[in-house]
Amino acid sequence: MDKLTEVLNLAKSKGYFWPSYEIYGGVSGFYTIGPMGSLVLKNIEDLWKSYFVRPNGFLEIDSPDIMPARVLKASGHVDNFKDPMAECAKCGSKYRADHLLSDSGIQVSESTSINQMNELLNQNKVKCPNCGATTWTVKQFLNMFETNIGPYADNKGYLRPETAQGIFVEFKTLLDINRGKVPMGIAQIGRGYRNEISPRQSMIRLREFHMMELELFMDPEDEKAPALDRDMKLPLLHEKVMEKGEPELISPYGAYKNGILKSAWLAYFLEKSFKFVMALGVPESKQRFIEKLVGERAHYSAQTFDHEVFFDEMGWTEVAGFAYRTDYDLKSHAKETGQELVVIEKKTISTRKTIKLNEKEVKNTHKKDWESIISSVPESREDGIYCAGIKLSSNEYKIIEEVEKEEVRKFVPYVVEPSFGLDRLLLATIYYAYGKKDGRNILSLPDVILGKVVAVLPLVSKKDMIEKAFEIKAMLEKSGYFVIFDEKGYIGKRYARLDEAGIPKAITVDGQTLEDGTVTIRDRDTWNQKRIRPSDLLV
Amino acid sequence: MDKLTEVLNLAKSKGYFWPSYEIYGGVSGFYTIGPMGSLVLKNIEDLWKSYFVRPNGFLEIDSPDIMPARVLKASGHVDNFKDPMAECAKCGSKYRADHLLSDSGIQVSESTSINQMNELLNQNKVKCPNCGATTWTVKQFLNMFETNIGPYADNKGYLRPETAQGIFVEFKTLLDINRGKVPMGIAQIGRGYRNEISPRQSMIRLREFHMMELELFMDPEDEKAPALDRDMKLPLLHEKVMEKGEPELISPYGAYKNGILKSAWLAYFLEKSFKFVMALGVPESKQRFIEKLVGERAHYSAQTFDHEVFFDEMGWTEVAGFAYRTDYDLKSHAKETGQELVVIEKKTISTRKTIKLNEKEVKNTHKKDWESIISSVPESREDGIYCAGIKLSSNEYKIIEEVEKEEVRKFVPYVVEPSFGLDRLLLATIYYAYGKKDGRNILSLPDVILGKVVAVLPLVSKKDMIEKAFEIKAMLEKSGYFVIFDEKGYIGKRYARLDEAGIPKAITVDGQTLEDGTVTIRDRDTWNQKRIRPSDLLV
Repeated sequence: MDKLTEVLNLAKSKGYFWPSYEIYGGVSGFYTIGPMGSLVLKNIEDLWKSYFVRPNGFLEIDSPDIMPARVLKASGHVDNFKDPMAECAKCGSKYRADHLLSDSGIQVSESTSINQMNELLNQNKVKCPNCGATTWTVKQFLNMFETNIGPYADNKGYLRPETAQGIFVEFKTLLDINRGKVPMGIAQIGRGYRNEISPRQSMIRLREFHMMELELFMDPEDEKAPALDRDMKLPLLHEKVMEKGEPELISPYGAYKNGILKSAWLAYFLEKSFKFVMALGVPESKQRFIEKLVGERAHYSAQTFDHEVFFDEMGWTEVAGFAYRTDYDLKSHAKETGQELVVIEKKTISTRKTIKLNEKEVKNTHKKDWESIISSVPESREDGIYCAGIKLSSNEYKIIEEVEKEEVRKFVPYVVEPSFGLDRLLLATIYYAYGKKDGRNILSLPDVILGKVVAVLPLVSKKDMIEKAFEIKAMLEKSGYFVIFDEKGYIGKRYARLDEAGIPKAITVDGQTLEDGTVTIRDRDTWNQKRIRPSDLLV
Repeated sequence: MDKLTEVLNLAKSKGYFWPSYEIYGGVSGFYTIGPMGSLVLKNIEDLWKSYFVRPNGFLEIDSPDIMPARVLKASGHVDNFKDPMAECAKCGSKYRADHLLSDSGIQVSESTSINQMNELLNQNKVKCPNCGATTWTVKQFLNMFETNIGPYADNKGYLRPETAQGIFVEFKTLLDINRGKVPMGIAQIGRGYRNEISPRQSMIRLREFHMMELELFMDPEDEKAPALDRDMKLPLLHEKVMEKGEPELISPYGAYKNGILKSAWLAYFLEKSFKFVMALGVPESKQRFIEKLVGERAHYSAQTFDHEVFFDEMGWTEVAGFAYRTDYDLKSHAKETGQELVVIEKKTISTRKTIKLNEKEVKNTHKKDWESIISSVPESREDGIYCAGIKLSSNEYKIIEEVEKEEVRKFVPYVVEPSFGLDRLLLATIYYAYGKKDGRNILSLPDVILGKVVAVLPLVSKKDMIEKAFEIKAMLEKSGYFVIFDEKGYIGKRYARLDEAGIPKAITVDGQTLEDGTVTIRDRDTWNQKRIRPSDLLV
């Protein structure tokens, strides 16, 4: 059994996640996150916020899953969010055309056209996996879930393909709440939907998934990005080194300065992402960033990098995408709605002085030259004000100071978007936490992911010990711990069960507990035990 | 302007929530939760868990929004989750038939039939709000959002009308994870969808909403519910007092013992709910529980109580429902799938002794009576074993102990379900927090709802003060605070803005801060200020 299969089995038996609707024979592309998975998911979300949201004073929103068709028409999804679908002429089975081809060893890329795929399938006589026939028709399949809003048949809606559009359509209100200022970061954690033609690969190609997205709105002429790291190195498989196939190790600062990354915010987010995924337990060497070239990128993106994690069984697998969306989305919605979606920047121009002549006085003083004085522009010299080369006395002019003048600049902000697949991160986290010790499975999840989870175990099933254990359980639950209570079986077996489930600490209540109140605490990874007071856990 | 309108205006301008898609002209029944609303929502969720999930060791899961049609056919939703829809014969406008009638002053209840509504609308010549015509056709409208899963046209799906079904279909796996034990509580916080015919009432009738549900599975013959409160009083408008229209004040214990509540868990959850909604800031006197009578209840429920909160503008409004679903759902899914969805309870029968005679020895010892001894049943008396009235010596018999015998009992567990509408709770929380002080608006949200939010304000816009303020901001953000940074405008105006937004504390950085590091901290509700060190906030 390969590691991934072992991990998926463990994920089900220990309550992390499993394919939904199994009693109904299963429906591809849907997973249920179980009790342990829910705890981990919340902690991954919180860790993500500590990297991407909180340090920059960004905001978080929660917008609907259902979107009116007009919004997604304007955003370009109705026209572009499609996959090539091959239909077997004989049995009518439907597949992803590009997957059929690559499974048959025929190279395709994200820029291969529908017609090309049609030809390739038919000319190479690729067999239908269902009936063996070799005649195919390829067309585009819109992979958004369609529905109808309300009772009128013409009111079409879609389930959002990304949370981002729920942010773009609320840009105006959000900018008001942020008091007109950019850079403004708006995060959203929620579900995305993609009506895959024939999903495979368990947690990787889901029809319904969890996303964490951040739309960073900024002034393209003055990005105001945080300082970039000049020392750390990111493995970037960017356009210029793509042919070699090996990532270049380069600092975020260098990659931005050299023009490899088109935005300083993009560089900043790649840096953050690398550290974030490391904190989940994925080693540096199992991460890389790969640039998506023209034709591979989404329709809205001027530059895209995918953050990939390596799995032995699946190779490099995307866990996050970073798109430089520019002003594409705001402009599209502005055009469709006729609304102005802009930042209004008011600049104060520095103090300006103007000299105004007192014409009456000039006429009285300069009987001869007054006309040439009045018709020329006064000039300020070190020793006074001159006009037509003649020095004026102070009663002949007034200096008017315009102290403030506002200059208004309107612009459509540019957007950089980090977008994370939460289910894939969950899988990667468990995959890299999974290991063996003395032939037993251990799920060594990082503390930041499962810190506040603890098991409480009465050593033997005696009434007073169970009561004491319940007392400790209640105390820990009051302090926000998630407590697993397990009173059955040999203690060694219970420890083994907990190690495999990833529970970081186990507290055992024994005879001595009844005497002096102390318990043993056992560590999942080292198997070390020591006696403590239960309240020591709370500090 | 009434209070509700004021609250809704504030909710938008301060970033709590607002109607979605406004730049597209709006789509009824959809709301976006803004930055402040997201913070509050998370805290309401966490508070709910501290009442309903953590204290009992319950589990939480996260299942898909999209469900295959077969699941919701089995659950009874496809046949029952419908509203009466009246269509105008002239202009084709569609409305909730019962709303049209009650708006015209004609009494209907949840048990009035389609045919009755049809007659009532036409006979009373109720006018179409759109064109004024008076001819109607009433039919049932299925209010689930329908979609198609994958590329095959016959693979229908629905957006879940409740999170509960995602729990019921995973019951088998969840019971395994819980090691076969009931009571087992499974919570889910997520979205629900209801394709309303013509939603009105802002946050009350949403087409997409946030729910918090708990399915409590238990043995109906031995509920094992926690101890019920005998002292607190709940206002129950139950069946027996419904006609009087006034709730009876009765303890959860009393209501269960008197048969007003059919399950002890139901009584326990009502008690919890009352305390929970009080913690959100809704006074006792603005809460009640009302029983839903036959015909008003959902198809799956043997007893339902709604938890209602009073709004001046809308009257009593449901924020939660408590349904005694019995074994309805598990039986329905078991029937449809042929799977056994049961709890298997293994009982150990108490130790049993049997006495076996050593016939050879008996024959040797009792030459005369051995036949009558062997043919009778041995009897255990205080002083030894007798057979046919004769005391036997210890070599004449053996006592065989059957130490353990397992008795297996299978049963379909019963379910009690608390189900909360999170959006309505959010509205109620803000509504009851909203008030005035010296003519100014204050949103006095309870600390538990917005505790870790703070504003940091440099007194004047000077470089060193702003830098110091940023330092304090970073420190607070590191400790998990959500920090609002506001450097513009007179300090009094800034305080007023923060009071209205509900921000509990404001920290002001002034000249003295630059000298000794102290700041002033100002309280939203009392307007009191005192000097502290910023690190004092963290303890």
